[in-house]
Amino acid sequence: MPNVIESQTSDGGFARAAARVSAGVAPSSRKPKRSGLSLGELAERFDCTVQGDADIRLTHVSTLEDADAQAITFVANARYLPMLASTQAGAVILSPQYAGQSPIPALIARNPYATYARVASVLHPVPAAQPGAHPTSVIGRGVHLEAGVSVGPGCVIEEGASLGTNVVLGPHCVVMRNAHIAANTRLVARVTVCADVTIGERCILHPGVVVGSDGFGNAPDNGAWVKIPQLGSVRIGNDVEIGANTTIDRGTLKDTVIEDGVRLDNLIQVAHNVRIGAHTAVAALVGIAGSTTIGKHCVIAGKVGIADQLEICDGVTVMAMTAVGASIHKPGVYSGAIGMDEVTRFRRSAVRFRQLDEMAKEIRALKKAPG
Amino acid sequence: MPNVIESQTSDGGFARAAARVSAGVAPSSRKPKRSGLSLGELAERFDCTVQGDADIRLTHVSTLEDADAQAITFVANARYLPMLASTQAGAVILSPQYAGQSPIPALIARNPYATYARVASVLHPVPAAQPGAHPTSVIGRGVHLEAGVSVGPGCVIEEGASLGTNVVLGPHCVVMRNAHIAANTRLVARVTVCADVTIGERCILHPGVVVGSDGFGNAPDNGAWVKIPQLGSVRIGNDVEIGANTTIDRGTLKDTVIEDGVRLDNLIQVAHNVRIGAHTAVAALVGIAGSTTIGKHCVIAGKVGIADQLEICDGVTVMAMTAVGASIHKPGVYSGAIGMDEVTRFRRSAVRFRQLDEMAKEIRALKKAPG
Amino acid sequence: MPNVIESQTSDGGFARAAARVSAGVAPSSRKPKRSGLSLGELAERFDCTVQGDADIRLTHVSTLEDADAQAITFVANARYLPMLASTQAGAVILSPQYAGQSPIPALIARNPYATYARVASVLHPVPAAQPGAHPTSVIGRGVHLEAGVSVGPGCVIEEGASLGTNVVLGPHCVVMRNAHIAANTRLVARVTVCADVTIGERCILHPGVVVGSDGFGNAPDNGAWVKIPQLGSVRIGNDVEIGANTTIDRGTLKDTVIEDGVRLDNLIQVAHNVRIGAHTAVAALVGIAGSTTIGKHCVIAGKVGIADQLEICDGVTVMAMTAVGASIHKPGVYSGAIGMDEVTRFRRSAVRFRQLDEMAKEIRALKKAPG
Repeated sequence: MPNVIESQTSDGGFARAAARVSAGVAPSSRKPKRSGLSLGELAERFDCTVQGDADIRLTHVSTLEDADAQAITFVANARYLPMLASTQAGAVILSPQYAGQSPIPALIARNPYATYARVASVLHPVPAAQPGAHPTSVIGRGVHLEAGVSVGPGCVIEEGASLGTNVVLGPHCVVMRNAHIAANTRLVARVTVCADVTIGERCILHPGVVVGSDGFGNAPDNGAWVKIPQLGSVRIGNDVEIGANTTIDRGTLKDTVIEDGVRLDNLIQVAHNVRIGAHTAVAALVGIAGSTTIGKHCVIAGKVGIADQLEICDGVTVMAMTAVGASIHKPGVYSGAIGMDEVTRFRRSAVRFRQLDEMAKEIRALKKAPG
Repeated sequence: MPNVIESQTSDGGFARAAARVSAGVAPSSRKPKRSGLSLGELAERFDCTVQGDADIRLTHVSTLEDADAQAITFVANARYLPMLASTQAGAVILSPQYAGQSPIPALIARNPYATYARVASVLHPVPAAQPGAHPTSVIGRGVHLEAGVSVGPGCVIEEGASLGTNVVLGPHCVVMRNAHIAANTRLVARVTVCADVTIGERCILHPGVVVGSDGFGNAPDNGAWVKIPQLGSVRIGNDVEIGANTTIDRGTLKDTVIEDGVRLDNLIQVAHNVRIGAHTAVAALVGIAGSTTIGKHCVIAGKVGIADQLEICDGVTVMAMTAVGASIHKPGVYSGAIGMDEVTRFRRSAVRFRQLDEMAKEIRALKKAPG
Repeated sequence: MPNVIESQTSDGGFARAAARVSAGVAPSSRKPKRSGLSLGELAERFDCTVQGDADIRLTHVSTLEDADAQAITFVANARYLPMLASTQAGAVILSPQYAGQSPIPALIARNPYATYARVASVLHPVPAAQPGAHPTSVIGRGVHLEAGVSVGPGCVIEEGASLGTNVVLGPHCVVMRNAHIAANTRLVARVTVCADVTIGERCILHPGVVVGSDGFGNAPDNGAWVKIPQLGSVRIGNDVEIGANTTIDRGTLKDTVIEDGVRLDNLIQVAHNVRIGAHTAVAALVGIAGSTTIGKHCVIAGKVGIADQLEICDGVTVMAMTAVGASIHKPGVYSGAIGMDEVTRFRRSAVRFRQLDEMAKEIRALKKAPG
């Protein structure tokens, strides 16, 4: 039983029987690799140019101010260029236009921030999960598990579900009947994937995510509600990331759809039959009501609410806390949050807000008055 | 041990010992019954009238456009009547006023949408859960389980808790000390029911729901907070549905109360000592602050915030994203979200909003000025 | 195996093997201690003065109207003083200024509400958790558990994590690699603590909390998003309470920090690199965006949104549903929610809001017009 390694708990008072090692768990600490990579190796891997010593070895990423000689940092905003004079970093990632301003070795990149992200991923890899199923996991009949799958402690995989190559389920994930999770997707911990849901490749679902819960469908009848069975499912594309405790409801008859490359932050509600277009990013605490379609390449900022049955076209940015009550047919930036004020001043404005129609009529009357 | 069925995982690399079948799990896929029901049988069951061939057999529900000959669909809105000309559905649910417009067999119903919901429930039943407790569940002393109870993998039921007839706990539910869940209620998965909470019959609690967490009570003292023990509980009536990751806090001294037939969507916060009246529906991401009472038959739309210590009377509708800062004593519809605008126009309005008191005074001055 | 006590489930139909008692679970019901304490004992313990019979025994706290002779209640607001005439309480907690108005024995306290909180904690103690690890828990290599630790059913503690003295993990908690939880902290149930997170002493984390999930960091590149690895962690101080389903993201490079004594309600989002100052309280459904710093002794009311990169100074109160889009450098109360109105009136105001700039210009024109 190679997955079961003797526990080394330090408290002798604990029963041996109680201490089972968590094989199949993805180790989570992202300590940099001690060996690191040379600046030249990084340049080759990410199709960048080296300026200065290509042999300098870099083991980790850092901020400009905390960097040491083994660190690589980045400047994506001209405002931070002056800090290059004092940084202790071994190297910096810079765009060509600022290359001349670097006193230290540099990785010249078309998109320094994205290149930083890729360099960080390589220098601080997510620890590999141990393939296999933890002995405390519960796996139903007819479950299909491809090679390299890791199933953590306490996971439950119901009948007919399938996990693609190298899928990682962290502790306490539940994958219900006939759900399908494609290759290289990772459920960090305590994720619930309901029946029939399909999730694409290379997705990351964070703790507490619920995909495929029943949509909120209720028909009024004689003063009470009759539940509308939610018979659709949820289809999630490739390269999607879903933040902690976000919920995505299954469709009523058709499916709720999250297209490729979408990024959802924490505590978002995606209602039934919603479609979110490819590469759209949605920040925390946003609510998207039923049957609304959001286009591709949109950015929905935090705490926005989007009403039901709307269409938001591609390329729309909605600023934080906006109430979107109508469809948007033109790309652009939309806003709707009044912003704060000192409370007594704000209250005066809010009282006047209720008098606005009266004020408008008074202005009209004044304009008509004989001068 | 009839609950333990040999695993049939497809990956030979997985330890047999690790693969235990999830007996006691509610199968979740809602495939239609192949035999179906005749239109006449549906009419009899739901007290409707048949128009056309009563013997046509229907196996599933569908949208108007996706229907085939075994599907029954519905039209609750005159806007969709023209689609009846082209639908391939075997039958349609219609109100008497539109009966004459159907070219296909019809189920004539007083409330087509509610009838559709009931027909869908019959044609797509929630798969029956297998009675019994999964071997990985943990059941405390003095737990009382009525006949037909199904306890899924990894569930924890603490001392003194009780589950009524046919209660279903999906995977990973936690029912704490002395909680009581009445007959035919279903906790879908990963629901936490804290100590002493009572839940009525035929409720559905979706994944991630927390009922009975401590209310947010803090007394300031010398610049720090002293926690107010939350000694009340939560009482939930019959036929209540609670959406994914919604939280309902226990009362401080008295109980938080959710009356019969209430529908709560996802990610809602119900604070301590709140009471929500019967048949009120609350959409996602709503927050209801402490000790507020909401009447019966209210509809609270998404992302509304309701302040503490308020009373909302019966029959109130609050539109999305409204800040309810005062009690409502008159049934009706209330609103409070300004809505969005293109960002530069919105910002001009928002700047003027801060000048509103000044503007009102200027108008007054102009009116008083000698003409 | 003292932790494993024979199950006494009442349903003979359940397999014995399936019924394991939940040793290590904190009993949750907070029944008062039958013996109680005398008024004099309470006075001594909390540095108060007794007025009237110091020997009266009190077993529980109560509201003024529900109290019986063994109950102690409190009046912190002069509005409730008249109720003292009719209460059946054995004693009341009062400030010195109202002492003369009590017809019943009284505990005279500088801060009656805080004293009530402390008295309630003593009369209704949280039931002690049974030390030890439940046999269904999974404990990794190199986990360090101090004396008195209680690990509930289904908990998973990964390699290198450590729990201080008397830490209680309720059912289904997950503590990932190298996380550290200090003495006397309690994770009620189903809490996820991600890798490397540190949590101080005497904290309480409610069900569904996620600490240390990845922050929402994405670099745009060629129309897609590149994930920014989230390499920082989360540091939580002492005496912090975190409400159900709240999420706290780990930092990008530095840590997200929650200082001592902070109180977070349910369903809050704390983004990466945020710092919340000591003794600040944050109500439900608040979102705090990345890298924002909130000072000490602030109160952030429900559903507030705070944009990224801001600084909120000490001593700020933000009222419910305010959109905080700029830093606050002066202590005080800030507001931003317009509030509700009957829907047709509100809509008229909202339409005029969009015309505000025009109205302001019309007023200016009228003022300039020859009178």
